[in-house]
Amino acid sequence: MPARARYEREIVEAILDEALVAHLAFTHDGQPYAIPTLQARVGDTVYVHGSAASRMIRTLAAGAPACLTVTLLDGLVLARSAAHQSVNYRSAMILGSARLLEAESEKLLALERFTERLVPGRWAEVRPPTAKELKGVSVLAMSLQECSAKVRSGPPLDDPPDMPLEVWAGVVPLRLAAGTPRPDPQLREGIALSPAVRRWARERP
Amino acid sequence: MPARARYEREIVEAILDEALVAHLAFTHDGQPYAIPTLQARVGDTVYVHGSAASRMIRTLAAGAPACLTVTLLDGLVLARSAAHQSVNYRSAMILGSARLLEAESEKLLALERFTERLVPGRWAEVRPPTAKELKGVSVLAMSLQECSAKVRSGPPLDDPPDMPLEVWAGVVPLRLAAGTPRPDPQLREGIALSPAVRRWARERP
Repeated sequence: MPARARYEREIVEAILDEALVAHLAFTHDGQPYAIPTLQARVGDTVYVHGSAASRMIRTLAAGAPACLTVTLLDGLVLARSAAHQSVNYRSAMILGSARLLEAESEKLLALERFTERLVPGRWAEVRPPTAKELKGVSVLAMSLQECSAKVRSGPPLDDPPDMPLEVWAGVVPLRLAAGTPRPDPQLREGIALSPAVRRWARERP
Repeated sequence: MPARARYEREIVEAILDEALVAHLAFTHDGQPYAIPTLQARVGDTVYVHGSAASRMIRTLAAGAPACLTVTLLDGLVLARSAAHQSVNYRSAMILGSARLLEAESEKLLALERFTERLVPGRWAEVRPPTAKELKGVSVLAMSLQECSAKVRSGPPLDDPPDMPLEVWAGVVPLRLAAGTPRPDPQLREGIALSPAVRRWARERP
Protein backbone atom coordinates (compact mmCIF):
# COMPACT_ATOMS: atom_id res chain seq x y z
CA MET A 1 0.00 0.00 0.00
CA PRO A 2 2.62 2.67 0.89
CA ALA A 3 4.55 1.94 -2.34
CA ARG A 4 1.36 2.11 -4.39
CA ALA A 5 0.35 5.37 -2.68
CA ARG A 6 3.79 6.91 -3.23
CA TYR A 7 3.64 5.99 -6.92
CA GLU A 8 0.17 7.50 -7.29
CA ARG A 9 1.33 10.64 -5.49
CA GLU A 10 4.18 11.07 -8.01
CA ILE A 11 1.72 10.79 -10.88
CA VAL A 12 -0.60 13.35 -9.25
CA GLU A 13 2.29 15.79 -8.83
CA ALA A 14 3.38 15.38 -12.46
CA ILE A 15 -0.17 16.00 -13.70
CA LEU A 16 -0.57 19.11 -11.51
CA ASP A 17 2.77 20.45 -12.73
CA GLU A 18 1.78 20.06 -16.38
CA ALA A 19 -1.81 21.36 -16.18
CA LEU A 20 -2.45 25.09 -15.88
CA VAL A 21 -6.20 25.07 -15.22
CA ALA A 22 -8.00 23.14 -12.48
CA HIS A 23 -11.71 22.79 -11.81
CA LEU A 24 -12.52 23.36 -8.17
CA ALA A 25 -15.78 21.85 -6.91
CA PHE A 26 -17.64 23.02 -3.82
CA THR A 27 -21.25 23.30 -2.71
CA HIS A 28 -22.99 26.58 -1.90
CA ASP A 29 -26.62 26.60 -0.67
CA GLY A 30 -27.04 23.02 -1.88
CA GLN A 31 -25.82 23.76 -5.42
CA PRO A 32 -22.51 22.20 -6.48
CA TYR A 33 -20.20 24.32 -8.64
CA ALA A 34 -17.12 23.46 -10.70
CA ILE A 35 -15.11 26.65 -11.16
CA PRO A 36 -12.11 26.86 -13.51
CA THR A 37 -9.08 28.34 -11.81
CA LEU A 38 -5.32 28.47 -12.21
CA GLN A 39 -3.44 26.20 -9.84
CA ALA A 40 0.19 25.93 -8.77
CA ARG A 41 1.86 23.26 -6.64
CA VAL A 42 4.65 23.77 -4.10
CA GLY A 43 5.69 20.54 -2.38
CA ASP A 44 2.61 18.87 -0.92
CA THR A 45 0.39 21.94 -1.28
CA VAL A 46 -1.64 23.10 -4.25
CA TYR A 47 -2.56 26.80 -4.41
CA VAL A 48 -5.43 28.59 -6.14
CA HIS A 49 -6.09 32.29 -6.00
CA GLY A 50 -8.91 34.70 -6.69
CA SER A 51 -10.78 37.77 -5.60
CA ALA A 52 -11.69 37.87 -1.90
CA ALA A 53 -15.26 38.74 -2.92
CA SER A 54 -15.79 35.65 -5.10
CA ARG A 55 -18.24 32.96 -4.01
CA MET A 56 -15.51 30.34 -4.44
CA ILE A 57 -13.05 32.05 -2.09
CA ARG A 58 -15.70 32.95 0.51
CA THR A 59 -17.17 29.43 0.57
CA LEU A 60 -13.84 27.63 0.69
CA ALA A 61 -12.19 30.01 3.18
CA ALA A 62 -15.03 29.07 5.55
CA GLY A 63 -13.80 25.45 5.47
CA ALA A 64 -16.32 23.86 3.08
CA PRO A 65 -15.28 20.48 1.63
CA ALA A 66 -13.77 20.78 -1.82
CA CYS A 67 -12.45 18.76 -4.75
CA LEU A 68 -9.76 20.04 -7.09
CA THR A 69 -9.48 18.18 -10.39
CA VAL A 70 -7.08 18.70 -13.30
CA THR A 71 -7.32 16.83 -16.57
CA LEU A 72 -4.85 16.61 -19.44
CA LEU A 73 -6.19 15.41 -22.79
CA ASP A 74 -3.55 13.26 -24.52
CA GLY A 75 -5.31 11.81 -27.54
CA LEU A 76 -8.36 10.59 -29.38
CA VAL A 77 -8.80 6.83 -29.12
CA LEU A 78 -10.52 5.67 -32.29
CA ALA A 79 -11.83 2.12 -32.07
CA ARG A 80 -13.42 -0.09 -34.72
CA SER A 81 -16.79 0.00 -32.97
CA ALA A 82 -18.79 3.08 -31.91
CA ALA A 83 -19.13 1.85 -28.33
CA HIS A 84 -15.34 1.82 -27.77
CA GLN A 85 -14.47 5.35 -28.91
CA SER A 86 -12.57 7.04 -26.08
CA VAL A 87 -9.83 9.51 -25.20
CA ASN A 88 -6.41 9.14 -23.62
CA TYR A 89 -6.10 11.42 -20.61
CA ARG A 90 -4.40 11.94 -17.27
CA SER A 91 -6.48 13.29 -14.42
CA ALA A 92 -5.66 14.10 -10.80
CA MET A 93 -8.16 14.72 -8.02
CA ILE A 94 -7.50 16.25 -4.60
CA LEU A 95 -10.11 16.07 -1.84
CA GLY A 96 -10.13 18.09 1.36
CA SER A 97 -10.84 21.55 2.59
CA ALA A 98 -8.84 24.65 1.78
CA ARG A 99 -6.93 26.98 4.04
CA LEU A 100 -6.88 30.73 3.36
CA LEU A 101 -3.30 32.04 3.45
CA GLU A 102 -2.62 34.71 6.06
CA ALA A 103 1.18 35.06 6.05
CA GLU A 104 2.50 37.50 3.46
CA SER A 105 5.57 35.31 2.91
CA GLU A 106 3.48 32.27 1.89
CA LYS A 107 1.29 34.44 -0.36
CA LEU A 108 4.41 35.76 -2.06
CA LEU A 109 5.73 32.22 -2.55
CA ALA A 110 2.40 31.17 -4.09
CA LEU A 111 2.31 34.17 -6.45
CA GLU A 112 5.87 33.46 -7.55
CA ARG A 113 4.89 29.89 -8.32
CA PHE A 114 1.79 31.03 -10.27
CA THR A 115 3.96 33.22 -12.50
CA GLU A 116 6.66 30.57 -12.88
CA ARG A 117 3.97 28.01 -13.78
CA LEU A 118 2.89 30.10 -16.76
CA VAL A 119 6.42 30.74 -18.04
CA PRO A 120 9.51 29.54 -16.14
CA GLY A 121 11.87 32.46 -15.59
CA ARG A 122 9.11 35.05 -15.91
CA TRP A 123 9.12 36.00 -12.20
CA ALA A 124 12.55 37.63 -12.54
CA GLU A 125 11.34 39.68 -15.53
CA VAL A 126 8.25 41.32 -14.05
CA ARG A 127 7.61 43.92 -11.38
CA PRO A 128 7.14 42.05 -8.08
CA PRO A 129 3.88 42.51 -6.16
CA THR A 130 3.59 45.39 -3.71
CA ALA A 131 2.44 44.86 -0.13
CA LYS A 132 -0.93 46.31 -1.14
CA GLU A 133 -1.28 43.90 -4.06
CA LEU A 134 -0.39 41.00 -1.79
CA LYS A 135 -3.12 42.06 0.66
CA GLY A 136 -5.65 42.33 -2.17
CA VAL A 137 -5.31 38.78 -3.46
CA SER A 138 -6.80 35.78 -1.71
CA VAL A 139 -4.88 32.52 -1.96
CA LEU A 140 -6.24 29.14 -0.90
CA ALA A 141 -4.07 26.12 -0.13
CA MET A 142 -5.12 22.47 -0.30
CA SER A 143 -3.02 19.58 0.96
CA LEU A 144 -2.20 16.71 -1.39
CA GLN A 145 -2.82 14.25 1.43
CA GLU A 146 -5.99 12.81 -0.11
CA CYS A 147 -5.30 12.55 -3.81
CA SER A 148 -5.74 10.09 -6.64
CA ALA A 149 -4.89 9.82 -10.34
CA LYS A 150 -6.75 8.29 -13.25
CA VAL A 151 -4.95 7.60 -16.50
CA ARG A 152 -5.97 6.08 -19.82
CA SER A 153 -3.25 5.50 -22.39
CA GLY A 154 -2.49 3.27 -25.31
CA PRO A 155 -4.41 1.97 -28.31
CA PRO A 156 -8.15 1.30 -28.55
CA LEU A 157 -9.54 -1.84 -26.94
CA ASP A 158 -11.94 -3.45 -29.38
CA ASP A 159 -13.87 -6.65 -28.78
CA PRO A 160 -12.13 -9.67 -30.34
CA PRO A 161 -14.91 -10.26 -32.94
CA ASP A 162 -14.37 -6.69 -34.23
CA MET A 163 -10.62 -7.05 -34.82
CA PRO A 164 -10.91 -8.28 -38.42
CA LEU A 165 -13.17 -5.35 -39.46
CA GLU A 166 -12.03 -3.22 -42.40
CA VAL A 167 -11.93 -0.10 -40.17
CA TRP A 168 -8.86 2.03 -39.38
CA ALA A 169 -8.24 2.10 -35.62
CA GLY A 170 -5.63 3.95 -33.63
CA VAL A 171 -4.81 7.05 -31.62
CA VAL A 172 -4.51 10.69 -32.65
CA PRO A 173 -2.14 12.33 -30.13
CA LEU A 174 -3.19 15.75 -28.80
CA ARG A 175 -1.07 18.40 -27.13
CA LEU A 176 -1.31 22.04 -26.08
CA ALA A 177 0.71 24.02 -28.62
CA ALA A 178 1.88 27.63 -28.43
CA GLY A 179 1.50 30.10 -31.29
CA THR A 180 3.67 33.12 -32.06
CA PRO A 181 3.78 35.52 -29.07
CA ARG A 182 1.75 38.70 -29.76
CA PRO A 183 3.13 41.86 -28.17
CA ASP A 184 0.71 44.06 -26.24
CA PRO A 185 -0.42 46.77 -28.74
CA GLN A 186 0.63 49.28 -26.07
CA LEU A 187 4.13 47.81 -25.68
CA ARG A 188 6.79 50.51 -25.79
CA GLU A 189 8.77 50.45 -29.02
CA GLY A 190 12.12 48.72 -28.92
CA ILE A 191 11.31 46.11 -26.27
CA ALA A 192 12.27 42.68 -27.59
CA LEU A 193 10.47 39.44 -26.70
CA SER A 194 11.77 38.37 -23.31
CA PRO A 195 14.14 35.39 -23.08
CA ALA A 196 11.77 33.44 -20.81
CA VAL A 197 8.80 33.82 -23.16
CA ARG A 198 10.86 33.05 -26.26
CA ARG A 199 12.19 29.86 -24.67
CA TRP A 200 8.72 28.77 -23.51
CA ALA A 201 7.07 29.29 -26.91
CA ARG A 202 9.94 27.61 -28.76
CA GLU A 203 9.53 24.47 -26.68
CA ARG A 204 5.82 24.18 -27.60
CA PRO A 205 5.55 24.59 -31.36
CA MET B 1 -32.41 40.80 -20.95
CA PRO B 2 -33.69 38.29 -23.56
CA ALA B 3 -31.20 39.57 -26.17
CA ARG B 4 -28.35 39.34 -23.67
CA ALA B 5 -29.44 35.82 -22.67
CA ARG B 6 -29.68 34.69 -26.29
CA TYR B 7 -26.19 36.02 -26.97
CA GLU B 8 -24.78 34.26 -23.91
CA ARG B 9 -26.50 31.03 -24.96
CA GLU B 10 -24.80 31.18 -28.38
CA ILE B 11 -21.41 31.58 -26.70
CA VAL B 12 -22.14 28.65 -24.37
CA GLU B 13 -23.08 26.44 -27.33
CA ALA B 14 -19.92 27.37 -29.24
CA ILE B 15 -17.73 26.59 -26.21
CA LEU B 16 -19.45 23.22 -25.64
CA ASP B 17 -19.03 22.33 -29.32
CA GLU B 18 -15.29 23.06 -29.23
CA ALA B 19 -14.43 21.42 -25.88
CA LEU B 20 -14.21 17.64 -25.62
CA VAL B 21 -13.87 17.25 -21.86
CA ALA B 22 -16.21 18.68 -19.21
CA HIS B 23 -15.93 18.62 -15.44
CA LEU B 24 -19.16 17.55 -13.82
CA ALA B 25 -19.65 18.60 -10.19
CA PHE B 26 -22.02 16.91 -7.77
CA THR B 27 -22.13 16.16 -4.06
CA HIS B 28 -22.16 12.67 -2.57
CA ASP B 29 -22.38 12.18 1.21
CA GLY B 30 -21.45 15.82 1.74
CA GLN B 31 -18.30 15.61 -0.40
CA PRO B 32 -18.28 17.59 -3.67
CA TYR B 33 -16.61 15.96 -6.67
CA ALA B 34 -15.51 17.34 -10.05
CA ILE B 35 -15.30 14.41 -12.48
CA PRO B 36 -13.80 14.75 -15.96
CA THR B 37 -16.10 13.36 -18.62
CA LEU B 38 -16.67 13.60 -22.36
CA GLN B 39 -19.66 15.75 -23.31
CA ALA B 40 -21.66 16.22 -26.50
CA ARG B 41 -24.39 18.75 -27.24
CA VAL B 42 -27.50 18.19 -29.35
CA GLY B 43 -29.72 21.30 -29.54
CA ASP B 44 -30.48 22.49 -26.02
CA THR B 45 -29.26 19.30 -24.34
CA VAL B 46 -25.77 18.31 -23.27
CA TYR B 47 -25.06 14.59 -22.86
CA VAL B 48 -22.48 12.77 -20.74
CA HIS B 49 -22.10 9.02 -20.50
CA GLY B 50 -20.51 6.47 -18.26
CA SER B 51 -20.79 3.14 -16.56
CA ALA B 52 -24.09 2.53 -14.77
CA ALA B 53 -22.11 1.47 -11.69
CA SER B 54 -20.15 4.73 -11.36
CA ARG B 55 -20.80 7.04 -8.42
CA MET B 56 -21.35 9.92 -10.83
CA ILE B 57 -24.07 8.17 -12.82
CA ARG B 58 -25.81 6.74 -9.73
CA THR B 59 -25.80 10.08 -7.89
CA LEU B 60 -26.94 12.16 -10.85
CA ALA B 61 -29.54 9.67 -12.10
CA ALA B 62 -31.17 10.04 -8.67
CA GLY B 63 -31.74 13.74 -9.43
CA ALA B 64 -28.93 15.37 -7.43
CA PRO B 65 -28.13 18.99 -8.38
CA ALA B 66 -25.16 19.24 -10.74
CA CYS B 67 -22.87 21.70 -12.49
CA LEU B 68 -21.21 20.94 -15.81
CA THR B 69 -18.28 23.20 -16.69
CA VAL B 70 -16.07 23.25 -19.78
CA THR B 71 -13.03 25.47 -20.14
CA LEU B 72 -10.93 26.24 -23.22
CA LEU B 73 -7.48 27.69 -22.62
CA ASP B 74 -6.69 30.26 -25.34
CA GLY B 75 -3.46 31.89 -24.23
CA LEU B 76 -1.01 33.04 -21.61
CA VAL B 77 -1.48 36.68 -20.67
CA LEU B 78 1.91 38.04 -19.68
CA ALA B 79 1.73 41.40 -17.95
CA ARG B 80 4.48 43.76 -16.83
CA SER B 81 3.69 43.16 -13.16
CA ALA B 82 3.46 39.81 -11.35
CA ALA B 83 0.01 40.57 -9.99
CA HIS B 84 -1.53 40.87 -13.47
CA GLN B 85 -0.35 37.61 -15.02
CA SER B 86 -3.40 35.77 -16.32
CA VAL B 87 -4.73 33.47 -19.04
CA ASN B 88 -7.18 33.97 -21.87
CA TYR B 89 -9.96 31.40 -21.70
CA ARG B 90 -13.57 30.65 -22.56
CA SER B 91 -15.63 28.78 -19.99
CA ALA B 92 -19.26 27.64 -19.98
CA MET B 93 -21.22 26.46 -16.95
CA ILE B 94 -24.54 24.60 -16.91
CA LEU B 95 -26.52 24.23 -13.69
CA GLY B 96 -29.42 21.85 -13.12
CA SER B 97 -30.10 18.21 -12.55
CA ALA B 98 -29.55 15.42 -15.03
CA ARG B 99 -32.03 13.02 -16.58
CA LEU B 100 -31.05 9.39 -17.23
CA LEU B 101 -31.95 8.41 -20.80
CA GLU B 102 -34.38 5.52 -21.11
CA ALA B 103 -35.33 5.52 -24.80
CA GLU B 104 -32.97 3.52 -26.99
CA SER B 105 -33.45 6.03 -29.84
CA GLU B 106 -32.20 8.97 -27.74
CA LYS B 107 -29.26 6.90 -26.44
CA LEU B 108 -28.32 6.08 -30.03
CA LEU B 109 -28.52 9.76 -31.00
CA ALA B 110 -26.27 10.68 -28.06
CA LEU B 111 -23.69 7.98 -28.91
CA GLU B 112 -23.63 9.12 -32.54
CA ARG B 113 -22.97 12.66 -31.36
CA PHE B 114 -20.17 11.49 -29.00
CA THR B 115 -18.39 9.78 -31.90
CA GLU B 116 -18.97 12.67 -34.29
CA ARG B 117 -17.66 15.08 -31.63
CA LEU B 118 -14.30 13.27 -31.57
CA VAL B 119 -13.94 13.11 -35.37
CA PRO B 120 -16.68 14.35 -37.73
CA GLY B 121 -17.56 11.61 -40.21
CA ARG B 122 -16.31 8.83 -37.93
CA TRP B 123 -19.78 7.46 -37.12
CA ALA B 124 -20.20 6.19 -40.69
CA GLU B 125 -16.82 4.41 -40.52
CA VAL B 126 -17.29 2.34 -37.36
CA ARG B 127 -19.46 -0.62 -36.39
CA PRO B 128 -22.68 0.80 -34.88
CA PRO B 129 -23.63 -0.16 -31.32
CA THR B 130 -25.64 -3.33 -30.76
CA ALA B 131 -28.84 -3.32 -28.71
CA LYS B 132 -26.87 -4.96 -25.90
CA GLU B 133 -24.17 -2.26 -26.01
CA LEU B 134 -26.86 0.44 -25.96
CA LYS B 135 -28.41 -1.14 -22.86
CA GLY B 136 -25.00 -1.32 -21.16
CA VAL B 137 -24.16 2.37 -21.39
CA SER B 138 -25.72 5.01 -19.16
CA VAL B 139 -26.28 8.44 -20.69
CA LEU B 140 -27.25 11.53 -18.73
CA ALA B 141 -28.84 14.63 -20.25
CA MET B 142 -28.72 18.17 -18.86
CA SER B 143 -30.75 21.06 -20.24
CA LEU B 144 -28.95 24.25 -21.27
CA GLN B 145 -31.74 26.29 -19.67
CA GLU B 146 -29.56 27.61 -16.85
CA CYS B 147 -26.20 28.36 -18.40
CA SER B 148 -23.59 31.09 -18.41
CA ALA B 149 -20.29 31.88 -20.10
CA LYS B 150 -17.15 33.57 -18.86
CA VAL B 151 -14.55 34.79 -21.33
CA ARG B 152 -11.21 36.60 -21.00
CA SER B 153 -9.54 37.71 -24.19
CA GLY B 154 -7.11 40.34 -25.39
CA PRO B 155 -3.85 41.80 -24.13
CA PRO B 156 -2.70 42.14 -20.51
CA LEU B 157 -4.18 44.95 -18.41
CA ASP B 158 -1.35 46.58 -16.53
CA ASP B 159 -1.70 49.49 -14.14
CA PRO B 160 -0.92 52.83 -15.84
CA PRO B 161 2.24 53.47 -13.75
CA ASP B 162 3.66 50.15 -15.02
CA MET B 163 3.22 50.90 -18.72
CA PRO B 164 6.67 52.51 -19.20
CA LEU B 165 8.50 49.54 -17.63
CA GLU B 166 11.22 47.88 -19.70
CA VAL B 167 9.32 44.55 -19.62
CA TRP B 168 7.95 42.63 -22.62
CA ALA B 169 4.19 42.17 -22.29
CA GLY B 170 1.76 40.34 -24.51
CA VAL B 171 -0.11 37.13 -25.17
CA VAL B 172 1.15 33.67 -26.14
CA PRO B 173 -1.75 31.97 -27.98
CA LEU B 174 -2.46 28.34 -27.04
CA ARG B 175 -4.37 25.71 -28.98
CA LEU B 176 -4.99 21.97 -28.91
CA ALA B 177 -2.89 20.48 -31.71
CA ALA B 178 -3.05 17.00 -33.23
CA GLY B 179 0.02 14.86 -33.88
CA THR B 180 0.46 12.16 -36.49
CA PRO B 181 -2.22 9.45 -36.15
CA ARG B 182 -0.74 6.20 -34.75
CA PRO B 183 -2.33 3.01 -36.03
CA ASP B 184 -3.36 0.38 -33.48
CA PRO B 185 -0.41 -2.10 -33.34
CA GLN B 186 -3.03 -4.79 -33.97
CA LEU B 187 -4.45 -3.07 -37.07
CA ARG B 188 -4.80 -5.50 -39.98
CA GLU B 189 -2.21 -4.88 -42.67
CA GLY B 190 -3.34 -2.88 -45.68
CA ILE B 191 -5.91 -0.69 -43.92
CA ALA B 192 -5.21 2.95 -44.77
CA LEU B 193 -5.86 5.88 -42.42
CA SER B 194 -9.58 6.67 -42.72
CA PRO B 195 -10.69 9.80 -44.60
CA ALA B 196 -12.43 11.26 -41.52
CA VAL B 197 -9.37 10.89 -39.28
CA ARG B 198 -6.99 12.20 -41.97
CA ARG B 199 -9.16 15.30 -42.46
CA TRP B 200 -9.46 15.90 -38.70
CA ALA B 201 -5.72 15.65 -38.04
CA ARG B 202 -4.85 17.79 -41.07
CA GLU B 203 -7.02 20.63 -39.77
CA ARG B 204 -5.20 20.66 -36.39
CA PRO B 205 -1.48 20.65 -37.13
